[in-house]
Amino acid sequence: MLNIGYLGPPGTFSELAARYYVEEKMKEERPKKEPQDEIKLTPFSSLQKVLLAIEKRSVTAGIVPLENSVEGAVNQTLDLLAHNFFKIYFQKEIILAVIHHLLVRPGTKPSGIRQIISHPQALAQCRNYIEQNFPDVETMETSSTAGAAALVAGSHDPWAVIGTTLAAENNGLQVLASNINDYPDNATRFMVVGLEDSEQAPGCKTSVIVTIKDRPGALYSILAEFARRNINLTRIESRPAKRKLGDYLFFIDFLGHRLDKGIRETLDEIVNHTLSLRILGSYPAHPS
Amino acid sequence: MLNIGYLGPPGTFSELAARYYVEEKMKEERPKKEPQDEIKLTPFSSLQKVLLAIEKRSVTAGIVPLENSVEGAVNQTLDLLAHNFFKIYFQKEIILAVIHHLLVRPGTKPSGIRQIISHPQALAQCRNYIEQNFPDVETMETSSTAGAAALVAGSHDPWAVIGTTLAAENNGLQVLASNINDYPDNATRFMVVGLEDSEQAPGCKTSVIVTIKDRPGALYSILAEFARRNINLTRIESRPAKRKLGDYLFFIDFLGHRLDKGIRETLDEIVNHTLSLRILGSYPAHPS
Repeated sequence: MLNIGYLGPPGTFSELAARYYVEEKMKEERPKKEPQDEIKLTPFSSLQKVLLAIEKRSVTAGIVPLENSVEGAVNQTLDLLAHNFFKIYFQKEIILAVIHHLLVRPGTKPSGIRQIISHPQALAQCRNYIEQNFPDVETMETSSTAGAAALVAGSHDPWAVIGTTLAAENNGLQVLASNINDYPDNATRFMVVGLEDSEQAPGCKTSVIVTIKDRPGALYSILAEFARRNINLTRIESRPAKRKLGDYLFFIDFLGHRLDKGIRETLDEIVNHTLSLRILGSYPAHPS
Repeated sequence: MLNIGYLGPPGTFSELAARYYVEEKMKEERPKKEPQDEIKLTPFSSLQKVLLAIEKRSVTAGIVPLENSVEGAVNQTLDLLAHNFFKIYFQKEIILAVIHHLLVRPGTKPSGIRQIISHPQALAQCRNYIEQNFPDVETMETSSTAGAAALVAGSHDPWAVIGTTLAAENNGLQVLASNINDYPDNATRFMVVGLEDSEQAPGCKTSVIVTIKDRPGALYSILAEFARRNINLTRIESRPAKRKLGDYLFFIDFLGHRLDKGIRETLDEIVNHTLSLRILGSYPAHPS
């Protein structure tokens, strides 16, 4: 049985990513054998609970958002991985296009909207649209776009929600404005996470977290090890170490599997330049 | 006349930073001449409006939050500087300790709280406290801690707010729990911003934004220029270029003034490795 945990409620982008993953998985397995007889998608109320369910083995894997092309890193995911969950590995990368819509209860007029509620990333991704069309409307954060849709559907307050057409259908809401993203090529990168990473294969990426000595200048000596072996970095993201201002962790992604010879050598070398090195795992990159 | 714009309403950490700046400014000027006869602090309803007021010269300078020791970069500030406001320069760095409190209307009991509202960074900085003490309580985002306090004070809903003792005093709220920050050494780095940067002097920092060719691997050749001249990097922060997933800008801070010889040379050299280089300015670093 396959049981995939994701940030609910149903109707979120995370559920769309989970469905995509399950479909891919079924396509892969069909030539070999019958599809898995039971597949379950389990929504959780927070990212923390998704990761906890994996560590407790009550789900087989989870889906977490990692970064968005407009809003950048999903800091909560990065911080949970760096500070709270040390047994979680990356298994697969999934990239989904993100399209936002402004949803209201049927009959609500634009001029009647006093509050726009949604997930903070959705609000951020439509910041210019809101500023231009609803300059005096307050925004409020909820833990998911789908949760915000349910809240608006069940309320009599003059609220609108930014969400998916799936959330509109699920909650009997009307699409007041379509494609309200500030940037058209909006995409979110999700990771399938579990208790182990993926087998060595071509087309993999690897993700690590490094803590460096002293100041970000030390980052140079780490990047030098990658550059010397022509390893292609795809992303560097700093997050605060949470001790004091000026102490950072770096999330580094690069092409290749951690068992590939050049990468094994690089990681062995990097240990000498870092206070800590954690391998988040190697995984098949999303086909580009 | 000195007129300083900040993210209001009054009672925010930005106002505390603005007050700190004005006091420092008066101390500096006292030995030379009489203090400026008029000093005004002007609250704005968004960071966008603060920056716009500077460009329109309706304020002499502004205060914007740049990063926090726990929550990391203030993405909205970085994105506005990178994508919307091209005439704004950094003039001075101010670092303030941040202490959060849980505020309620007098008489509200912890068990009666159904919603905790505040600025998203304040909510994030007290995430563990909320998760442990109010696991089933929804959080909602407002544009400022002070705004959230006013909202709670004027409502009959079972809400609590995360804010400053100043906000509690201003709004007749009661401190239900003190020092609820998840991390004790919580500090925020603010920048004084205006239409020009600061004069060459010892103890300065410089901030730049670079767009690099292709992938973050190119970051290595930029860092090499700094390393070769022993220039101390204090921070590297990536933000999405907002075109497509995998395109990033880098905010780089380092010690020294842009007119110092070694730094002038470095910046001249870096231009060859970047698609764009923008100097956000050189400014006195906050005394450590």
